[in-house]
Amino acid sequence: MDLKKYIRDIPDFPKKGIVFKDITPLLSNPGAFEFAAKKIAGKYRNSKIAGVVGIESRGFIIGSVVACLLGAGFIPVRKKGKLPYKTRCASYGLEYGTDSIEIHEDAVKKGKNYLLVDDLLATGGTMAACCGLVECLGGKVLACQFVIELSFLKGRDKLKNYKTNSLIIY
Amino acid sequence: MDLKKYIRDIPDFPKKGIVFKDITPLLSNPGAFEFAAKKIAGKYRNSKIAGVVGIESRGFIIGSVVACLLGAGFIPVRKKGKLPYKTRCASYGLEYGTDSIEIHEDAVKKGKNYLLVDDLLATGGTMAACCGLVECLGGKVLACQFVIELSFLKGRDKLKNYKTNSLIIY
Repeated sequence: MDLKKYIRDIPDFPKKGIVFKDITPLLSNPGAFEFAAKKIAGKYRNSKIAGVVGIESRGFIIGSVVACLLGAGFIPVRKKGKLPYKTRCASYGLEYGTDSIEIHEDAVKKGKNYLLVDDLLATGGTMAACCGLVECLGGKVLACQFVIELSFLKGRDKLKNYKTNSLIIY
Repeated sequence: MDLKKYIRDIPDFPKKGIVFKDITPLLSNPGAFEFAAKKIAGKYRNSKIAGVVGIESRGFIIGSVVACLLGAGFIPVRKKGKLPYKTRCASYGLEYGTDSIEIHEDAVKKGKNYLLVDDLLATGGTMAACCGLVECLGGKVLACQFVIELSFLKGRDKLKNYKTNSLIIY
């Protein structure tokens, strides 16, 4: 199945000059959504995974389905201030300024393997911060998994210490 | 399975005097997560569902898994300004002021059935706005489904025109 058919280009979103890759046509098509989720899950079928970590908020959509298909738990990583229990926080650079993400302190078990999922690999800053959160709690990053990778932004450079997989590469 | 065992009370979150019901222990437990998702999906197994609508962002986690289990597409409803394509917007009252949610204009097909999913039924304002969005695009609301219902907040009053189901009721 050619998944690129279900990705829509939106010019000038979220700001002028950026062409946004919209995955909602893929999500709303039952066949394409199931195909994508099963293709991702199939890659890790033989790995021992303690949990799938999804990054807010589009990473929640694919991450939770992959968790369910693999029989693993789902762990949300959220923007600062959204998780209610004790958290660890990591900051990462944006074009201007910084942003922060958090994980619950009790979400990760020492020495166990975690699969990290987000919808899009752009510059890789968010995912690199997420890897740091899992590792500072003693977890192992099995792999970083994306639906879409914008390879010209060289996000893999920031993730070179991790196995990185993408379903669709531009 | 007693799902209440996997819900954690967090006092004074997001502000003093509120006891927050934290579903992350349920999500991170593979057995409990799968049990909850299958129990929800089982209710609609014999209904014709064109799509599952999930409300940002905890509604994405359960909603997308239920969509996958039912072989339906997933449609995200997001906070204003987050969806990239043409949208319809609905506002709803909060304790102080208002908030707004959006849906893509092409996400709903006229005359088809949609299942609306969120994690928590409190006062019902967000879900009522979401029902309005689906209906203004010509879709039918098959049911509103929640993981947790805080029945003392009487959210069902705002949803009395719709079938409303909750997995866990306090």
